[in-house]
Amino acid sequence: MTEPFAAVDVIVAKRDRNELTDPQIDWVVDAYTRGVVADEQMSSLAMAILLNGMTPREISRWTAAMIASGERMDFSSVGRPTTDKHSTGGVGDKITLPLAPVVAACGAAVPQLSGRGLGHTGGTLDKLESIPGWRASLSTEEMLAVLRDVGAVICAAGEHLAPADKKLYALRDVTGTVEAIPLIASSIMSKKIAEGTSALVLDVKVGSGAFMKTQERAAELARTMVALGESAGVRTRALLTAMDTPLGLTAGNALEVRESVEVLAGGGPSDVVELTVLLAREMLDAAGVVGPDPADVLADGRAMDAWNRMIAAQGGDPQAPLPTARESHVVVAERSGVLSRLDALAVGVSAWRLGAGRARKEDPVSAGAGIEMHAKPGDLVVAGAPLLTLHTDDAERFARALTDLEDGVEIADEGTRVDRLPLVLDRIGA
Amino acid sequence: MTEPFAAVDVIVAKRDRNELTDPQIDWVVDAYTRGVVADEQMSSLAMAILLNGMTPREISRWTAAMIASGERMDFSSVGRPTTDKHSTGGVGDKITLPLAPVVAACGAAVPQLSGRGLGHTGGTLDKLESIPGWRASLSTEEMLAVLRDVGAVICAAGEHLAPADKKLYALRDVTGTVEAIPLIASSIMSKKIAEGTSALVLDVKVGSGAFMKTQERAAELARTMVALGESAGVRTRALLTAMDTPLGLTAGNALEVRESVEVLAGGGPSDVVELTVLLAREMLDAAGVVGPDPADVLADGRAMDAWNRMIAAQGGDPQAPLPTARESHVVVAERSGVLSRLDALAVGVSAWRLGAGRARKEDPVSAGAGIEMHAKPGDLVVAGAPLLTLHTDDAERFARALTDLEDGVEIADEGTRVDRLPLVLDRIGA
Repeated sequence: MTEPFAAVDVIVAKRDRNELTDPQIDWVVDAYTRGVVADEQMSSLAMAILLNGMTPREISRWTAAMIASGERMDFSSVGRPTTDKHSTGGVGDKITLPLAPVVAACGAAVPQLSGRGLGHTGGTLDKLESIPGWRASLSTEEMLAVLRDVGAVICAAGEHLAPADKKLYALRDVTGTVEAIPLIASSIMSKKIAEGTSALVLDVKVGSGAFMKTQERAAELARTMVALGESAGVRTRALLTAMDTPLGLTAGNALEVRESVEVLAGGGPSDVVELTVLLAREMLDAAGVVGPDPADVLADGRAMDAWNRMIAAQGGDPQAPLPTARESHVVVAERSGVLSRLDALAVGVSAWRLGAGRARKEDPVSAGAGIEMHAKPGDLVVAGAPLLTLHTDDAERFARALTDLEDGVEIADEGTRVDRLPLVLDRIGA
Repeated sequence: MTEPFAAVDVIVAKRDRNELTDPQIDWVVDAYTRGVVADEQMSSLAMAILLNGMTPREISRWTAAMIASGERMDFSSVGRPTTDKHSTGGVGDKITLPLAPVVAACGAAVPQLSGRGLGHTGGTLDKLESIPGWRASLSTEEMLAVLRDVGAVICAAGEHLAPADKKLYALRDVTGTVEAIPLIASSIMSKKIAEGTSALVLDVKVGSGAFMKTQERAAELARTMVALGESAGVRTRALLTAMDTPLGLTAGNALEVRESVEVLAGGGPSDVVELTVLLAREMLDAAGVVGPDPADVLADGRAMDAWNRMIAAQGGDPQAPLPTARESHVVVAERSGVLSRLDALAVGVSAWRLGAGRARKEDPVSAGAGIEMHAKPGDLVVAGAPLLTLHTDDAERFARALTDLEDGVEIADEGTRVDRLPLVLDRIGA
């Protein structure tokens, strides 16, 4: 087959700050998927995109080309409006776990295709896999059946959704080209649009533990993704939320499942409850579903019922005891005062060292490893009282995990003003 | 072996406009040569270097790392000062052919390691290989013997000189990262410094047929290379010379050898003679050799003697008839007037289409193919008189070659002022 373009000409166009044409974009994404454009050519193009940017038209076409590289799913047989959430990733961000059953209990259908964790941010599938028997891989038919019966399903995205993105994401990871807003936005949105949901709420994290360290960059990413969704016919909105400190009081797989179950039982940390309710309201509103309020289905047990059925439908035993790690170590407050800093990145990296996350795609994770937090920034602490409990299967990991925490935890004199980001910084969308 | 760096961290540093450290540069060049840094990582780094630049310290260290990837040659046994010339490449640039014997006849030793052509610029070795029997590949011992006996040798650079550059150059060629001044300068200078010459004159071409389209970019490249050479102990200077129109009246392998022999016989086009003499004087001055003037050794036959001995020493028969192409086609002037434009790039691309150059490294070239020019910009032409003669072994190539020439040739009313670059635009160096 004769190729209509040469890869080097497409690279040079972007390098020299020209706008790529639709046929150039369609070709380069398709040819990369087919292996005609080599890895070393796509990585050079990705770096040029990162440094020179893309116009909204280019980003939209790039996303469409990634969608066209695979299949699109169809949820029209489910009989309820579908609505989905995507988080850009944070530390202790277990929100998907309580959120999906809450929204299902309110009357919408939640087809939540999720991923695994890499680096210091956790992955929803890793967390759920700590539940004995639960499995992430479903066929399309199984997925549709759970969605119809329960109203919510959380499972792994199949190989057939946006394969170009899968290949490109792995390449970006090793070539220093992850942090390009056009490529982040098109990666997320190609999968979400191909998945076929009718409404989508984006939780774009801001702060030390997030991909986007500043509100400005996070807002740019959010606006780019909302525009991509809306132009593809998906009702899309975004919340910019705080990730300067971990969400809730746990970071780690089984630890976060336990905390999620507490929220579903009507308890749990206030920030997790509040964000779950806010995101659920956005998801229902975007889907045009008028039903019970999310706070009510949490309070009266309907969300817990949906959770139990969702877990059981994927082979899990919602009543089985969760795994615990073999070793634990308590960090106590060195002085009395106010906890002025509990840095999300430090906690995320430390939990990752303890075994909660993976360094390489193919590594296993430890179900029980992670960190419990006994105080949050702004809380008063007393010298000698427990501040953190570290859990791991391998006691040799404590030393490094403690080092990672060193600069991330600070206690100040009582009365010191503690600066924290508000839970929700901004809302972008319709 | 444990690697001291991760490739992605080096890429991200340059991407984020930080200066790379000496250990980072040493490692990334060495690790790329060893295959530990992958092609897709080096191409992404190369694009970041192209777009974000390098400091003089980074360029100098990068060049040193490329030299350290291979062997260094030693010409101390030759017994005469060595001096070398490098051209950044142009159309009809056969200057090395008369220049090496001229400088040898004046008393310096010229160890000219040359390359083959790629794209629209010709390669010195391709030109010389049109001489029956002549061979480009010499062992180091053979090379030193020719240099001692004749005073000049033109041959292929061995695999052992700067192998990192060889690998990186091939990568840059397919990833849109050729046009980075730090990478161009370090590529050229690593080979020249490793080659071990004591003096070097750079002919940096400016204009449509050159790599550097503007004098500003050419001067930046020249200054960068002169600084690299001087800091490595090589007396280095540069001339910026015109490449808006081809040098001389021929572009093509055997055609250019014929023209070079005319120059060595005391005739030939004035621009070729002038540039040969100017570069020869610079080479002798840089090497500190006081001897006969280059113009004199051209006039009295001593340069021709050196040529004949140099060609014969590498198996060539300097008296043998040169190959000619099977087909020719004459382009006549469509009107009378003054030749106002004869574009170097158009002629170069057209000659390449006729078979004088190669599209891929592994392609053969045609010895006889190319273009003879019967007028130069500023010359008066008469309607119907020959303007160009195209030569090829394959008559089907004429149509495309003529199309490539269309916008490159213009005749204006007699008396129209013709803008041309001066032959020498600037001189940079000691």
